[in-house]
Amino acid sequence: MADYDLVIINGLVASAEDVIEADIAIKGDKIVSVTARGGLKDATATKTIDADGAYITPGGVDAHVHLQEPPLFGKGSSADTFETGSRSAICGGTTTIIVFAPQQKSEDTLLATLEATHAKANKVCYSDYSFHLLVANPSENALAEFPALRKAGISSLKIYMTYAALKLDDGQILDVLLAARENGITTMIHAENNDLILWMTAQLEKRKMFQPKYHATSHPAMAEIEATYRAICLSEFIDAPILLVHISSPAAAKHIKEAQDRGLPIHAETCPQYLFLTKDDLDKPGFEGAKCVCSPPPRESEVDHEGIWQGLENGTFTVLSSDHCPFLYDDNQTGKKSCIDEEYPDGHFKYIPNGCPGVETRLPLAMSAGRLKMTKFVEVTSTNAAKLYGLYPRKGAFVPGESDADLVIWYPEGKLEPFALKNKMLHHNVDYTPYEGKTLKQWPRYTILRGKVMWDRDDGGLVGKAGDGAFLHRGQSSLKGPLSTEPWDIRGF
Amino acid sequence: MADYDLVIINGLVASAEDVIEADIAIKGDKIVSVTARGGLKDATATKTIDADGAYITPGGVDAHVHLQEPPLFGKGSSADTFETGSRSAICGGTTTIIVFAPQQKSEDTLLATLEATHAKANKVCYSDYSFHLLVANPSENALAEFPALRKAGISSLKIYMTYAALKLDDGQILDVLLAARENGITTMIHAENNDLILWMTAQLEKRKMFQPKYHATSHPAMAEIEATYRAICLSEFIDAPILLVHISSPAAAKHIKEAQDRGLPIHAETCPQYLFLTKDDLDKPGFEGAKCVCSPPPRESEVDHEGIWQGLENGTFTVLSSDHCPFLYDDNQTGKKSCIDEEYPDGHFKYIPNGCPGVETRLPLAMSAGRLKMTKFVEVTSTNAAKLYGLYPRKGAFVPGESDADLVIWYPEGKLEPFALKNKMLHHNVDYTPYEGKTLKQWPRYTILRGKVMWDRDDGGLVGKAGDGAFLHRGQSSLKGPLSTEPWDIRGF
Amino acid sequence: MADYDLVIINGLVASAEDVIEADIAIKGDKIVSVTARGGLKDATATKTIDADGAYITPGGVDAHVHLQEPPLFGKGSSADTFETGSRSAICGGTTTIIVFAPQQKSEDTLLATLEATHAKANKVCYSDYSFHLLVANPSENALAEFPALRKAGISSLKIYMTYAALKLDDGQILDVLLAARENGITTMIHAENNDLILWMTAQLEKRKMFQPKYHATSHPAMAEIEATYRAICLSEFIDAPILLVHISSPAAAKHIKEAQDRGLPIHAETCPQYLFLTKDDLDKPGFEGAKCVCSPPPRESEVDHEGIWQGLENGTFTVLSSDHCPFLYDDNQTGKKSCIDEEYPDGHFKYIPNGCPGVETRLPLAMSAGRLKMTKFVEVTSTNAAKLYGLYPRKGAFVPGESDADLVIWYPEGKLEPFALKNKMLHHNVDYTPYEGKTLKQWPRYTILRGKVMWDRDDGGLVGKAGDGAFLHRGQSSLKGPLSTEPWDIRGF
Amino acid sequence: MADYDLVIINGLVASAEDVIEADIAIKGDKIVSVTARGGLKDATATKTIDADGAYITPGGVDAHVHLQEPPLFGKGSSADTFETGSRSAICGGTTTIIVFAPQQKSEDTLLATLEATHAKANKVCYSDYSFHLLVANPSENALAEFPALRKAGISSLKIYMTYAALKLDDGQILDVLLAARENGITTMIHAENNDLILWMTAQLEKRKMFQPKYHATSHPAMAEIEATYRAICLSEFIDAPILLVHISSPAAAKHIKEAQDRGLPIHAETCPQYLFLTKDDLDKPGFEGAKCVCSPPPRESEVDHEGIWQGLENGTFTVLSSDHCPFLYDDNQTGKKSCIDEEYPDGHFKYIPNGCPGVETRLPLAMSAGRLKMTKFVEVTSTNAAKLYGLYPRKGAFVPGESDADLVIWYPEGKLEPFALKNKMLHHNVDYTPYEGKTLKQWPRYTILRGKVMWDRDDGGLVGKAGDGAFLHRGQSSLKGPLSTEPWDIRGF
Repeated sequence: MADYDLVIINGLVASAEDVIEADIAIKGDKIVSVTARGGLKDATATKTIDADGAYITPGGVDAHVHLQEPPLFGKGSSADTFETGSRSAICGGTTTIIVFAPQQKSEDTLLATLEATHAKANKVCYSDYSFHLLVANPSENALAEFPALRKAGISSLKIYMTYAALKLDDGQILDVLLAARENGITTMIHAENNDLILWMTAQLEKRKMFQPKYHATSHPAMAEIEATYRAICLSEFIDAPILLVHISSPAAAKHIKEAQDRGLPIHAETCPQYLFLTKDDLDKPGFEGAKCVCSPPPRESEVDHEGIWQGLENGTFTVLSSDHCPFLYDDNQTGKKSCIDEEYPDGHFKYIPNGCPGVETRLPLAMSAGRLKMTKFVEVTSTNAAKLYGLYPRKGAFVPGESDADLVIWYPEGKLEPFALKNKMLHHNVDYTPYEGKTLKQWPRYTILRGKVMWDRDDGGLVGKAGDGAFLHRGQSSLKGPLSTEPWDIRGF
Repeated sequence: MADYDLVIINGLVASAEDVIEADIAIKGDKIVSVTARGGLKDATATKTIDADGAYITPGGVDAHVHLQEPPLFGKGSSADTFETGSRSAICGGTTTIIVFAPQQKSEDTLLATLEATHAKANKVCYSDYSFHLLVANPSENALAEFPALRKAGISSLKIYMTYAALKLDDGQILDVLLAARENGITTMIHAENNDLILWMTAQLEKRKMFQPKYHATSHPAMAEIEATYRAICLSEFIDAPILLVHISSPAAAKHIKEAQDRGLPIHAETCPQYLFLTKDDLDKPGFEGAKCVCSPPPRESEVDHEGIWQGLENGTFTVLSSDHCPFLYDDNQTGKKSCIDEEYPDGHFKYIPNGCPGVETRLPLAMSAGRLKMTKFVEVTSTNAAKLYGLYPRKGAFVPGESDADLVIWYPEGKLEPFALKNKMLHHNVDYTPYEGKTLKQWPRYTILRGKVMWDRDDGGLVGKAGDGAFLHRGQSSLKGPLSTEPWDIRGF
Repeated sequence: MADYDLVIINGLVASAEDVIEADIAIKGDKIVSVTARGGLKDATATKTIDADGAYITPGGVDAHVHLQEPPLFGKGSSADTFETGSRSAICGGTTTIIVFAPQQKSEDTLLATLEATHAKANKVCYSDYSFHLLVANPSENALAEFPALRKAGISSLKIYMTYAALKLDDGQILDVLLAARENGITTMIHAENNDLILWMTAQLEKRKMFQPKYHATSHPAMAEIEATYRAICLSEFIDAPILLVHISSPAAAKHIKEAQDRGLPIHAETCPQYLFLTKDDLDKPGFEGAKCVCSPPPRESEVDHEGIWQGLENGTFTVLSSDHCPFLYDDNQTGKKSCIDEEYPDGHFKYIPNGCPGVETRLPLAMSAGRLKMTKFVEVTSTNAAKLYGLYPRKGAFVPGESDADLVIWYPEGKLEPFALKNKMLHHNVDYTPYEGKTLKQWPRYTILRGKVMWDRDDGGLVGKAGDGAFLHRGQSSLKGPLSTEPWDIRGF
Repeated sequence: MADYDLVIINGLVASAEDVIEADIAIKGDKIVSVTARGGLKDATATKTIDADGAYITPGGVDAHVHLQEPPLFGKGSSADTFETGSRSAICGGTTTIIVFAPQQKSEDTLLATLEATHAKANKVCYSDYSFHLLVANPSENALAEFPALRKAGISSLKIYMTYAALKLDDGQILDVLLAARENGITTMIHAENNDLILWMTAQLEKRKMFQPKYHATSHPAMAEIEATYRAICLSEFIDAPILLVHISSPAAAKHIKEAQDRGLPIHAETCPQYLFLTKDDLDKPGFEGAKCVCSPPPRESEVDHEGIWQGLENGTFTVLSSDHCPFLYDDNQTGKKSCIDEEYPDGHFKYIPNGCPGVETRLPLAMSAGRLKMTKFVEVTSTNAAKLYGLYPRKGAFVPGESDADLVIWYPEGKLEPFALKNKMLHHNVDYTPYEGKTLKQWPRYTILRGKVMWDRDDGGLVGKAGDGAFLHRGQSSLKGPLSTEPWDIRGF
């Protein structure tokens, strides 16, 4: 019997901490050894892969994925199922996805939501997965279920400051933050000022401005800047850790950084759409712009991109997620981006479902950009998500004996001819990608999930199977939590 | 016939710009000459006052006064009428008051409110007066009345971000700001986060914490800090000038300063209660603390006072107003601070009407403190209010031929023995002052309104009459307005 | 006999505080009355000028003027004498100049310097004048003369952080600040990091980069930013008021603003060259660029201009001075900008005397730009300089009986055809202006000095005489001084 | 033959990235395996240590150690030799020290300095060691030796902005930074404003204030704040990475953080004396205070400590070093702290050698404080120093096959009775510790250097030998370097 099941030699093994020339040995699900290059030359292995000097990174952890959600904008429900979404993830190097389990405002329970979402995901996933509870109704009963959520392996939830169907008011946010703090749960917040968006929408309608590009106008940066600061205030008041999702505006990022410098447990996320798209992408001929409608929208120009890159580099952003939120562009049944109807023959921005696909392109885009140091790339695409959401060091690391053998082997430098991305290369269930035509310089050559090769780009492509992915029972965040270890007390005020 | 009606000699004439040794000549309502000391020695005058080397300042302009308002907290309506309130003002050196004309949420019009308030004030005031419209229901109709308000001499209004009966949501605030901008109106904003206050109130009630001091707990500084920044964001979005009323927290002041440094038309007000009281004043034995209940509440400690003084000195605060909002402490009929009843035999903080009397003590307190340079004292207690609310140079200045002969002659240095303030010295219709016992070093010796001596402390005290005061038709602010002279345009976003 | 010597009717009288429609009456040297328009219609006057609705501003106070100085760069001494320099000032609306009295490093006394400078100025000036002592050698003896300086009417001095012949080290600066604080003197500081300039100069020489444009390269913004912050630190340490002269960089201005917001007595100056010129002006064909060589140099682009305008608007800059420092461009004897010689046939940037003429163009440039509110224009070109340098309200104001009758009457709006500035229009003794060809929309129509018309653009031009100007004995600054009124004490540290 | 030479089981293995329950296997000098607890149960080992649930951290890397230096203050030379200093390090858990190799101002070469320092250290060290070149004379020749330094394994140097014998002027600093940048060298800067210190010293002498406590007065925080900002400016100008050594003032730390947030390669160090001592420690009876004289001095109060802790937590400080700079207190021959002589019978602060011992107490103090998360503790006491100074992952990590088997095994929680530190417990050659009597809760139980137990507190104490330590040939920093990969170019300005 061989010493190891799989050995990967000649890699540049990149963690959040360092990049070393090393070999990796895998037994069963786990990484069992990382040694200096050549250290495994006497070992036997069932299978050996020669990385040929290429980077090896921990499998991507994408902590912001929407799948199989009911319609939020009247017309479109998520185009991807757990099966197609996790398939797309794996083919793009992401071995763990955390997907939203969306409570409806009409529901009084979160556990039922969790159960229903388990049912959707069970035995069909290509990647490992867990859930964030999306709390739309923080009723007394729902809050009382937080301990049960923790027992069920859920240590994070998401709330919204906008969208009529989801929005919590500031008092409800305080309720959630307090209960979350008491249960060691991290709260993700979608921070946009709802009133400002509605007001701008009304102004646009009054002027009969309906084209897709006005989606960006209706969601001005100020809506995000204001709400981000408000969320920080509420978090500081309760001393509860939060993650601000999909930050797009450098001015919002500045509020976050300032809070972090003061030592507050404020975490933040950004997404590829805020690094690679601008609002000009919404102003394409005809209805094309609808493909890039998401919230917050892509911002003004490359000056904004630069600010977001800087936020990744200086630590403002904890994670780079996809916010994969897929809707079909052309289909008339479901998930239809195109909300054209009789009343608005050219469409109306406010009915276009908000969201873009991106779970598969996240890692290749970031890697191809070549902007981030490799350790930073690993940190924001994998390690920090694992830490923040209680999966570390099982995910996001190469700790022998501890870490699952989830990894991506990239192409050796210069071995992959730069190529233009096309949607047909992708494995989601969506009929477009907002990055169509973009030149990429890297792509995962292999994706390995718990020791099993799932994606072998040069030999078979997707070789894993639906059901190979498993549910991940998560613990508490190991990143910065409340400043005080005491219970929150009104006497402090 | 004499050259002048009144001549004041040997003064130290202090304006917002300078302090000079000068004599002042008055004819009819107006100042007609300001000359270097001795310059009027050959002129004849019907009456001459020798200031004896004392400071002469423009009559105070108090731009934040509540009179004869209906109950907001169920039980207490304003204890002062226009007559008693303006009487109190005059005796404390304030010759102009701007009083709120409060629209009810159930009303669809502002003009009726204005008319009703005119009726209350007509022929009973001791000081000159004007009105801010308090907008509780910015309906289409109400907004359409803005041009008519301007024609009626009203160039400012006030809105609230808190209090169920008054609160506007952010969309309504945007509506008001846009209409105000279009009509050259300045918007005053009471900025506290309503949800946070309600949430804290519920937390306190859950814990059966009802004493007056918990009013301060229920209005944490964070509520003001957050809402102040939000108001700035909304103002910046519309490019409309605002004044943030009664700022109490240095951290809120910092947001304001930062906005001002960026060139935005953000103005701010603070009040004596944030310079001289702390939350300890709410924690007096029994129900005494109720006397200092106002919103925002006095803050933590002298560190906060220091921050507010610094804000006055460095220009953050445009004006120092009284927020005179008087309720009786002991009476059982109306205006009752004491909300003791059967359910809450020791009272409940949330039913204590919010507000303190202060129109008479504002100038003496600020003058006695000796903290501000004389030019700064004049600027924040008189000149800037006149400029911001469209009364300059008729009020707040000594411009010969232009300025009304409104002035205060103080005591020469060393001529007034420091004394302990007692409520019985005051002329309001309130049975207490929060500053009872405080040592004062100055008080107006004379208050002169449009050339007429109204207050002569050493000879007759109040010598003016109800009805001496007149309504002031106001023009547009001459302080910083919108950055752009173009109409607000959605295309900018 | 007439009531007044001179009456000016129908003006828009602009002070730092307000703009009013008013008439002005003058008797002898002084303004004796300012009345609402029409208020003088019954008075008699020896002479009456109808301003025809035009602005009337206080005569300009230019607090940064170099005249008749010895060579600092080996070759050029000031091209203007007190006579020609003050003549130029008057023709451009400036009625008061404060000129440097330069001590040499080899001298141990300031009083001798003062005396010598008095001798140069005596009876030849067209405008009023005073002196700043330029301290190059703060010896014990020189510091001991500070009380005598004050008695002689000098309340300000200037020191340099750069230029070998003038530079003080940080210890000497502390000595000066401490002695200045004790004597109520304001210290002006030229803040550039000398070592950085020398180092860049050496780098340029090594690369044989000698053209005029490299002057800008050799004085990078960083040199100013660093030294500005250092000067603020030293001032804060001693609690002594300073004025940072000729600030050109928005990042330096930001340091200043931050210090001001903390309440420190930090004042600042900027100049037209930092509002209207960029470093591209140094890169003109041939040796032309030398005409715009000054220190600090004009900066990068209009982004910098914008930052400086914003600093004027938000109060960062106390004064807008000319830094008139004139050298001839073509003459071979003295004041030669052109330092071309055998060794450097195309010149060498480091030998080009640093400085540009500007005393005459300062007010017209600022007025024509139309960027500043009129009150701000008056404040930074006249009133604040008078206050900071102890001349207020004699200068910089229209206080009846107090203020000298120094004023500028401009052209009524639309009455002056915009025209291209040419050097031949100017009255200095310099053969160029850096603003040649620039379109101007305003120019003083009349300049009046202590009641005497000195400049009547449409009828005689310069009608005043050399010797009409007088020395001004100055008092202490009335702007922000030390925070503490106690003597500086080492025990505080 | 056993599988491993040494196996350590049941540890809580703490790296800069995480804390895991793990076992460690060592072969020869190297860590060869880190496995989940129990993972080595079948392996054989020559020696096994049971960590008993205690933390295991990488051996400390102390990057700021002065040993065997010549006198800088006339009287005292370093009390510790390489032998005694490295012995002290080992007994306190530090396995790597980087010691200064001090060039004299009179010397024109660095290589000779390096050689001489090698000679002192050779074969006598208990810990591993390397050198920072201390550049006192950056002559052309010295700068030309930088490539040779790199070849010799030296990738960092240190310069001073103060001390007559060492101080570089700003131009020399630019020279050093440029040459350092070109050679991949990191520059450490001692940032205090020399002139300000000299000036304060003179002020104190004038007042006959000589006691030790006036050392603190003579080095005010402002000296550090100013120079820190200046150093950042110079670094930014050249785009060269620097480390600001021994930062003591929160205001200086704020400048650093702001620079880091802008993405600049600014690194910083603080030391235990700025976390545990205040200037009151210099004000002990008699001459005792001299024991705490170091530069910068301990600051005002615990408010400063709090600011420094916050800087460690929020990433401002890259490393926590000792600045071990030992002088004898009582000896009369060498290294005498006590500078008492005939002229100053009670001593004179300016002759007290600046520096305190601390190489042995650094880790126990930081660990006992319990303020830092374990990962942060490891990062700032070991990993970051290894990264910044080119030793990573050989030092500061547990990378199997790569990392030297340098580690500290601490006491299991609750197993070490808190005890009062006494100097006689320490192994340096100094007759005092500034922390005498301080209660400690932790101390290294074992220190292991490249697989060899050097310190076994409970069984033999110091069991290693002089000469066990080896010289470390260092590479380039792997932390943030220049923003641009292009050579520095004057054309950018």
